[in-house]
Amino acid sequence: MGMVGGGRGAFIGAVHRIAAAMDGQIELVCGAFSSDPQRSRESGADFFLPADRCYGSYQEMIAGEKARPASERMDFIAIVTPNHMHFPPAKMALENGFHVLSDKPATFNFAEARALAGIVKKSGLLYGLTHNYTGYPLVKQAREMVRSGALGKIRKVVVEYPQGWLATRIEASGQKQAAWRTDPKRSGAAGCIGDIGTHAENLAEYISGLQISELAADLTTFVKGRKLDDDGNVLLRFKGGAKGVLHASQISVGEENNLNIRVYGEKGGLEWHQREPNTLLVKWPDQPMQVYRTANGYLSPAALAAGRTPPSHPEGYLEAFANIYKAFAATIRARHEKRKPTAIESDYPKITDGLRGMAFIEAVVASSKKNAAWTKLAV
Amino acid sequence: MGMVGGGRGAFIGAVHRIAAAMDGQIELVCGAFSSDPQRSRESGADFFLPADRCYGSYQEMIAGEKARPASERMDFIAIVTPNHMHFPPAKMALENGFHVLSDKPATFNFAEARALAGIVKKSGLLYGLTHNYTGYPLVKQAREMVRSGALGKIRKVVVEYPQGWLATRIEASGQKQAAWRTDPKRSGAAGCIGDIGTHAENLAEYISGLQISELAADLTTFVKGRKLDDDGNVLLRFKGGAKGVLHASQISVGEENNLNIRVYGEKGGLEWHQREPNTLLVKWPDQPMQVYRTANGYLSPAALAAGRTPPSHPEGYLEAFANIYKAFAATIRARHEKRKPTAIESDYPKITDGLRGMAFIEAVVASSKKNAAWTKLAV
Amino acid sequence: MGMVGGGRGAFIGAVHRIAAAMDGQIELVCGAFSSDPQRSRESGADFFLPADRCYGSYQEMIAGEKARPASERMDFIAIVTPNHMHFPPAKMALENGFHVLSDKPATFNFAEARALAGIVKKSGLLYGLTHNYTGYPLVKQAREMVRSGALGKIRKVVVEYPQGWLATRIEASGQKQAAWRTDPKRSGAAGCIGDIGTHAENLAEYISGLQISELAADLTTFVKGRKLDDDGNVLLRFKGGAKGVLHASQISVGEENNLNIRVYGEKGGLEWHQREPNTLLVKWPDQPMQVYRTANGYLSPAALAAGRTPPSHPEGYLEAFANIYKAFAATIRARHEKRKPTAIESDYPKITDGLRGMAFIEAVVASSKKNAAWTKLAV
Amino acid sequence: MGMVGGGRGAFIGAVHRIAAAMDGQIELVCGAFSSDPQRSRESGADFFLPADRCYGSYQEMIAGEKARPASERMDFIAIVTPNHMHFPPAKMALENGFHVLSDKPATFNFAEARALAGIVKKSGLLYGLTHNYTGYPLVKQAREMVRSGALGKIRKVVVEYPQGWLATRIEASGQKQAAWRTDPKRSGAAGCIGDIGTHAENLAEYISGLQISELAADLTTFVKGRKLDDDGNVLLRFKGGAKGVLHASQISVGEENNLNIRVYGEKGGLEWHQREPNTLLVKWPDQPMQVYRTANGYLSPAALAAGRTPPSHPEGYLEAFANIYKAFAATIRARHEKRKPTAIESDYPKITDGLRGMAFIEAVVASSKKNAAWTKLAV
Repeated sequence: MGMVGGGRGAFIGAVHRIAAAMDGQIELVCGAFSSDPQRSRESGADFFLPADRCYGSYQEMIAGEKARPASERMDFIAIVTPNHMHFPPAKMALENGFHVLSDKPATFNFAEARALAGIVKKSGLLYGLTHNYTGYPLVKQAREMVRSGALGKIRKVVVEYPQGWLATRIEASGQKQAAWRTDPKRSGAAGCIGDIGTHAENLAEYISGLQISELAADLTTFVKGRKLDDDGNVLLRFKGGAKGVLHASQISVGEENNLNIRVYGEKGGLEWHQREPNTLLVKWPDQPMQVYRTANGYLSPAALAAGRTPPSHPEGYLEAFANIYKAFAATIRARHEKRKPTAIESDYPKITDGLRGMAFIEAVVASSKKNAAWTKLAV
Repeated sequence: MGMVGGGRGAFIGAVHRIAAAMDGQIELVCGAFSSDPQRSRESGADFFLPADRCYGSYQEMIAGEKARPASERMDFIAIVTPNHMHFPPAKMALENGFHVLSDKPATFNFAEARALAGIVKKSGLLYGLTHNYTGYPLVKQAREMVRSGALGKIRKVVVEYPQGWLATRIEASGQKQAAWRTDPKRSGAAGCIGDIGTHAENLAEYISGLQISELAADLTTFVKGRKLDDDGNVLLRFKGGAKGVLHASQISVGEENNLNIRVYGEKGGLEWHQREPNTLLVKWPDQPMQVYRTANGYLSPAALAAGRTPPSHPEGYLEAFANIYKAFAATIRARHEKRKPTAIESDYPKITDGLRGMAFIEAVVASSKKNAAWTKLAV
Repeated sequence: MGMVGGGRGAFIGAVHRIAAAMDGQIELVCGAFSSDPQRSRESGADFFLPADRCYGSYQEMIAGEKARPASERMDFIAIVTPNHMHFPPAKMALENGFHVLSDKPATFNFAEARALAGIVKKSGLLYGLTHNYTGYPLVKQAREMVRSGALGKIRKVVVEYPQGWLATRIEASGQKQAAWRTDPKRSGAAGCIGDIGTHAENLAEYISGLQISELAADLTTFVKGRKLDDDGNVLLRFKGGAKGVLHASQISVGEENNLNIRVYGEKGGLEWHQREPNTLLVKWPDQPMQVYRTANGYLSPAALAAGRTPPSHPEGYLEAFANIYKAFAATIRARHEKRKPTAIESDYPKITDGLRGMAFIEAVVASSKKNAAWTKLAV
Repeated sequence: MGMVGGGRGAFIGAVHRIAAAMDGQIELVCGAFSSDPQRSRESGADFFLPADRCYGSYQEMIAGEKARPASERMDFIAIVTPNHMHFPPAKMALENGFHVLSDKPATFNFAEARALAGIVKKSGLLYGLTHNYTGYPLVKQAREMVRSGALGKIRKVVVEYPQGWLATRIEASGQKQAAWRTDPKRSGAAGCIGDIGTHAENLAEYISGLQISELAADLTTFVKGRKLDDDGNVLLRFKGGAKGVLHASQISVGEENNLNIRVYGEKGGLEWHQREPNTLLVKWPDQPMQVYRTANGYLSPAALAAGRTPPSHPEGYLEAFANIYKAFAATIRARHEKRKPTAIESDYPKITDGLRGMAFIEAVVASSKKNAAWTKLAV
């Protein structure tokens, strides 16, 4: 793979590299790690890459790789830049024959997402999106239990993503991660809701198997001088009648990355916390709650396939992230082998998830501007 | 005290009696335990009451007690009947010189609550309301920490009360507790929101010290044939700018009484779960989370006064409930002693809480009927 | 009942009074609350007792009550004094026709316990012991699950009772609770092991249904100048081949009353923590762990009978304590009614538990003196 | 690196490979993955190794690599075979100029460990041991807090490692992992105590900074027909006067890998659970317990250096394992750079840990044979 972004000092680039390398199936072969060519080269050297494959821009990289013999090219690009720089490299890569694995949200706005969906379709190539929380084994177990009907028809979903790191205006003092996330020119129409609300939305739809049909959102910017929302509370209605609540926050002081979800059906309920991701609580009306744990034999095949270690050897964020890469690589391999990937191999977020995420952001922002009026999430 | 309701087979009557007796300050001296005089007498006999103080109705009881010498009368009545029977005995008791301690919600509807507030005021007597969750030591600690400014200005409140026991239509098969709670004639305009949503509202206002100014609510009746809501999701706005989410449910399968609250200020955050009530999580931006526990010396005087045992001898629901009675009795005693009760002695929910609770119910129902339009909570 | 000890300033007296009163079946009618008659009277007045039933000593009380008409006497005495004062009032009460409910350990030493067992037997009266932790609903559930064979033959028991409150020499600065517990003249041959180790021993035998046959103990006094052990680690062997570990400590800084137990059989395992007493973890080899919770319908009758509130209305220490009193009262009532008490009514610790507890203390002390040599626990 | 063992079907080989690769600093260049040359080659092909570096035995590998130009050789070998095959390849590698990173325990018995220590010393090369649990960020934090004196002088250590997977005789039905671990010819003198008891011992000494001076152990084989212990309870005495308990079990039904440790000093206490490794509980006598979490700024440099992701992106077993490899690689690099490694770079278990682990195993076995007589742990 070739990487766009993720040079020295970046946070998410290192996560992507570890995730990509974890299963020994993907090799980082080139990169445009920085818009500064010198920095890109230095970063590449950190990763033991030859200088001629450390490019000064994604354009150079795509052109340079395309010029190489087919067997010596990168197979796909991984995009790990801020939001406004997701679409351009994705578009160019797809138009030049390279698969794309992109950080989320898919694009800067919904219009770009729609355009990208068209390009993906036309290209016939693969597009993956790192909604990484869906990579956890017990998130997969949760989805399988809903799918199997064990919980009955789903009635209610509560999903939350509180963080506290933006409780003060740290973007004003040069914190790089905060700076771009609170800048409408780089982050998009939403702050908190785009950065982490989309993870909550994606997780809710992934596990419940339901689509949000409409929502009513109340966004707030608590920190003075900030240009984008840092907190949002959203009422949800799903197709088929389920109801829900989604709230995300970056001013919930003392919270780390407390992505949590509860799903209740007519027959049973589920609860999962990212903070302790190897535990899934399963609730029944007349029986004791059950505590499902990663890697145990009673799990579904999809959940078992997502684990790498025996029970109670805790698996974490990087392993979940790596599961996106693993599935993406397995799907590319299936193509090479001219066969259809299995359901497990193709279980990674795709452009449809990207489209829904961008539609969610726009619907939330639109609703909030109309004082939390119900707004359709239309893709 | 004299009890209205709570005869054989009732659930909450026993809770009130244990709570009242816990500190050896209150004696059950009479009761109108049932609308069936025979049943009332039999119930009274269970409590070792003389037959002549087991009345056939609250009217008889109030008249009968009034007719006794002042030193041999009950001091107050405890009302533990379904909602539609809260106002009439409260009114009559107050108009005949008896203090009143009532189960919540205060009345059947807001109009009654307003009338009752007038009667309380006019009578000069005491009125208490068993929003019992505010009786927990660590709920008091949470309130004190907010009050002291330790958390800074409050920005966000998340309060939840999921239950699962009404996930099917058990009211149709004669479950007594379910029957009246789902019956608009006995429960009032709301089901779930009146029964437990009001507890969540009261807890949020008690701890945060803030008043809800307006709300947007989406109520649902998931169980076919049920006449009142069994699930509700509410966006909150507080006076002063804080935002919040409140959700309550009686169809969240497998949930017991998971009343939970999180409060975030500019400087710190709090988290409390009724399920594990002797633990209060206190969160800071740059320091490890702290785990406050009941009965430890570092707690505020109000929290310490609300405990009865040493640290980690878990205190539960009955002790919290008893704290309402204890404070109510202490305030009556202060009257006898012709002194002002201390802040701790007078720390029990009053008619103002009752008014706000009824206003909350009506605002939620009104908002939901208007498709979650923002609705003022006006008292 | 009449109380021996427990006057103003005592800790455990108040616990006993609340526990006794909780179910409205027991009335405190007299007491010898202090060895100081004036203090005894003042304490009695706090409890609304007439002056003539506030005695200056237990001897006076037993004589005074015996002199009253049979229908106006106390039924039993509750002993809530330090350990050295358990045996004398118990003996005198039994010899004068009164049942006895005593705080633990039963006596000052094993010889007294053996004598007391003889007196109990001879008297034909009831003797109860407040090993209160066995009063928790889920402790009863644990025992029932072992009894039923659901866990298979028991192999291993781990029981722990760490506290931290004696990590420094607070007895030197006048802390009353610490003073007598660390004084060999009032506490007996052991400190920590007598005070809380016996609770651990009793709980382990109660739940497992097994008897400790021999043990190897390593006691330590960490705090300089202290006369009794403040920490103990014990290897256990049970009749039938099970093994175990028991450790108790009063110098485990920051621990409250963390009584914990784990029991493993051939087919399943159990885990319970007093800190969160309404949760029982049940473990299976090939199935998810189950979380049993107080008051749910799936519990055994014994566990259900031990609860007073609906699920997830947490029950605590006082309720568990009250269950000892409740069973004791029910057994007295059964006597009055000339019938055999049911298994649930007679489920309270008896003199046999007292004997085993005292034998445990002596075995631990003896083993430790012999450098942890294996020592029989012989009753 | 070159790998000894860890071919297709092995469990721990994959763990080592992921751990080694995680930080992009170590490349798997060759291996003797199986004693079956064909299987070794096939395994190597899975890892994209050229056929000529997939050796049929460790002897061939060491010889083959030594024959290559210095710049094209492996730097070190990773040994991931059963216990009886740890010493021979370690010895040969060291004697031929290669560093060694070995799975634990270091050797088959103490005599081998002593011999190995001599060889390491003589060789001047590096030897690392994957006591991987010491790689967790919060284990490092715990050690740092002890070291800093924040907890005061250590008094008590409780360390436990219960598992349940050997509760029945699965070794009889061909389970490969169980087969060698319960075979005295491949596992050594101890079963459970060697396999996981050593991890507990190592963790206790690592965090407390204390050495076990003597111990009294009671080992049991609960499963009929098994040749080695499957459960062990051990009393510990540390140099300097601290006391402790260590218990490990493989028949604790329903337990996964519940390695837990509690350490109490005169001023504070610590508690850590592998099951939830990103949480460290820190206890104080007069202040609320604190919850330290991985990756937060308040941690010590050693703990921060051991993390790879932001707070509450859970890090797991593989990351902890990788920290051993990371430190080992950093120390090799420091050698290349002719400088002394930093304390953080050299923070990986070494031959001294291996010696102590083997001495622990032999002391436990010897003590148990003498009915839990106190036995010195002598290195």
